[in-house]
Amino acid sequence: MRIGVLGTGMVGQTLSGALARLGHEVVIGTRDPEAAVARTEAPRPGMSSFSEWHAANPRVKVATFAEAAGHGEIVFNATSGTGALDALRAAGEERLEGKILVDIANPLDFSAGMPPTLSVANTDSLGEQIQRAFPEAKVVKTLNTVTAAVMVEPQAVGDGDHHLFVSGDDPAAKREVTRLLQEWFGWRNVIDLGDITTSRGTEMYLALWIRLMPATGSPMFNIKVVL
Amino acid sequence: MRIGVLGTGMVGQTLSGALARLGHEVVIGTRDPEAAVARTEAPRPGMSSFSEWHAANPRVKVATFAEAAGHGEIVFNATSGTGALDALRAAGEERLEGKILVDIANPLDFSAGMPPTLSVANTDSLGEQIQRAFPEAKVVKTLNTVTAAVMVEPQAVGDGDHHLFVSGDDPAAKREVTRLLQEWFGWRNVIDLGDITTSRGTEMYLALWIRLMPATGSPMFNIKVVL
Repeated sequence: MRIGVLGTGMVGQTLSGALARLGHEVVIGTRDPEAAVARTEAPRPGMSSFSEWHAANPRVKVATFAEAAGHGEIVFNATSGTGALDALRAAGEERLEGKILVDIANPLDFSAGMPPTLSVANTDSLGEQIQRAFPEAKVVKTLNTVTAAVMVEPQAVGDGDHHLFVSGDDPAAKREVTRLLQEWFGWRNVIDLGDITTSRGTEMYLALWIRLMPATGSPMFNIKVVL
Repeated sequence: MRIGVLGTGMVGQTLSGALARLGHEVVIGTRDPEAAVARTEAPRPGMSSFSEWHAANPRVKVATFAEAAGHGEIVFNATSGTGALDALRAAGEERLEGKILVDIANPLDFSAGMPPTLSVANTDSLGEQIQRAFPEAKVVKTLNTVTAAVMVEPQAVGDGDHHLFVSGDDPAAKREVTRLLQEWFGWRNVIDLGDITTSRGTEMYLALWIRLMPATGSPMFNIKVVL
């Protein structure tokens, strides 16, 4: 499958690498591909630089936001939440038209230090903002409730016995994303929360997630809905 | 134990009834006790009126907010979130001083219809507002992530294999509340999220909870943190 991934951070790298290893044709998009490939400093301790990552993942093509979006039959928004709308505008509305746009971003605002707050919450959400800005794209909000390593390997936590959520206005697009997440990564338990306004629920859950991480001692966790 | 419960809604009724059945001396507080006891209309379909509930739970004494707070060695805030600060002011700062104040309320705002939004979120929380307004009380935020029936019977959901959270500035108060919740209701898995600012996490989780309820078809659920 031809897949476009917008954003070269930890989420974009993890997702692109995993999808390329599964044999997909992945193009990862960024504002300035040459600058990204030349980047040798690690974004944070313990992470490799983008140039190291790129050397280790040669099947992933690095290109502009527009090229990645144009390439993808399906497009993932893996940018930082506060940069998402700008990145998607650079990708271009016409290259997203009619496509499934999987929105993984969380609108985390680190400007006042740790822990972050949300730049949009409560009466709106990033998922809704994106759907309003790109009405011809089929926005499906998902994967934003787990750390990157869990997105592509749910079995790494509790043997995969936990839940993921999808939000979106297009039921067929949600079913297709649910099917792909099962097929690609083995996500067994996906709950359809409803229309794109339900993105508020999973984005606001981040306020609990960022406090569970220090309490559990690791980002390798997820929640299971117990009935 | 002498226990004060502020608020005569579903949460106050369920909690007071369960604690009285365990043999505790429970006083439930409300603005106008005579009016509450005379109330024969059900607050919503399927619920009994307060007078019916009171007849079925004669061991729970109905009194003012101030009397309930003065009576309790420990006090529960089970008011509606938007009325919590007014109710606590009516209870009186001097009657809360030095006591554990268990804050169960969520700041749900139904004024714009369903689903509700939060009247405070993201950069503040009801738990923090209460701790700031009553600095001599030991505020412990907990139980606000589950429906009333699950609060007092965690085994009713997934055999009790799920999590509750506590937030608060006083570690000894959190330990005591954790111990009481285990002893009274059998809560086995309680995660200490940290200081009272972590109330933002559990209050904002409500935005997910209110969408999980229609998705799962019932309020009888909770989340388990899976590692």
